[in-house]
Amino acid sequence: MVRWEPDAEGRLRVAALELYTERGFEQTTVADIAERAGVTARTFFRYFADKREVLFAGSSVLQDLMVTGLKDAPAGASPLTAIAAALDAAATMFGPERRTFSRQRHAVITANAELRERELIKMESLGAALAAGLRRRGVPDPRAGLAAQAGLAVFHVGFQNWVAGGDEDFADLMRAGMADLRGLAAEA
Amino acid sequence: MVRWEPDAEGRLRVAALELYTERGFEQTTVADIAERAGVTARTFFRYFADKREVLFAGSSVLQDLMVTGLKDAPAGASPLTAIAAALDAAATMFGPERRTFSRQRHAVITANAELRERELIKMESLGAALAAGLRRRGVPDPRAGLAAQAGLAVFHVGFQNWVAGGDEDFADLMRAGMADLRGLAAEA
Repeated sequence: MVRWEPDAEGRLRVAALELYTERGFEQTTVADIAERAGVTARTFFRYFADKREVLFAGSSVLQDLMVTGLKDAPAGASPLTAIAAALDAAATMFGPERRTFSRQRHAVITANAELRERELIKMESLGAALAAGLRRRGVPDPRAGLAAQAGLAVFHVGFQNWVAGGDEDFADLMRAGMADLRGLAAEA
Repeated sequence: MVRWEPDAEGRLRVAALELYTERGFEQTTVADIAERAGVTARTFFRYFADKREVLFAGSSVLQDLMVTGLKDAPAGASPLTAIAAALDAAATMFGPERRTFSRQRHAVITANAELRERELIKMESLGAALAAGLRRRGVPDPRAGLAAQAGLAVFHVGFQNWVAGGDEDFADLMRAGMADLRGLAAEA
């Protein structure tokens, strides 16, 4: 008989982050995570390829959200306004209920060189996807690449503030970051 | 008797890049590089800790150049103008004589996940150093972090164009990139 598992995936994520935080990423096994979540290792592998994927499964969700947000921006929107729409779309993923997870995840990644490298690769992939999205909107290179990288800059700094800070709204931080970027660029 | 070695370091760099390009990074040994450069392995290790360092020794030179350029920008310069001074300083490293090396290096790094990750870590370190330099100039966070990341965006896109392109001047590409960024930010 299959045991009914209310949000086994969510419990696995919470359990994994707790264990990575308590013991370190290296010292945690899939068996530990499954046990803490009250499921079998087999159930773990139904949701995640390995213990690293618990941390990075959200990266492709984020990229899809942002690329869709970019695509759905008004046809006449300037490149950075379209990027701002992508950042707005990202905010749907980073509600207050996710902040504890994101904060723990950020600390675990920062403490591990291999994870940090993987995170940077994911950001590089996000930048390439945003640049491709801008090119599909008719923005030529190098402006497409530059607007995409500028968007990553806003995301990067805003995200750091979101995980480090108090209870700021993610979307507000992204909008403030874009406004700051425009302000910086307007200073001679 | 010690053999006189005109620019052994330079010959080792050229030899390494040739071999990485011909055979791949993984398939090249320090002994191969030393042999091609006409020196002993011992001489190799006088200049580089390992075969990876041949590719990344320039990264700290670049960072020092840019941080010094930032520090030496006029006291009243805006954050992005100070960053532009750092990009100008970087250009002293990327003269036409370095383009072949940079182009081969870029191809070798792009083909190898581990090297790509290391390159991204170096860029992250450069971003942190520029942000710290801006803070020392009195720019508060999050503007310091954002201006530094925007500078990396210009560097990243301009560098890609420099290695991919014809005979554009590196400094010109950096200045055009900064102008593009300001232009993008000025569009509503």
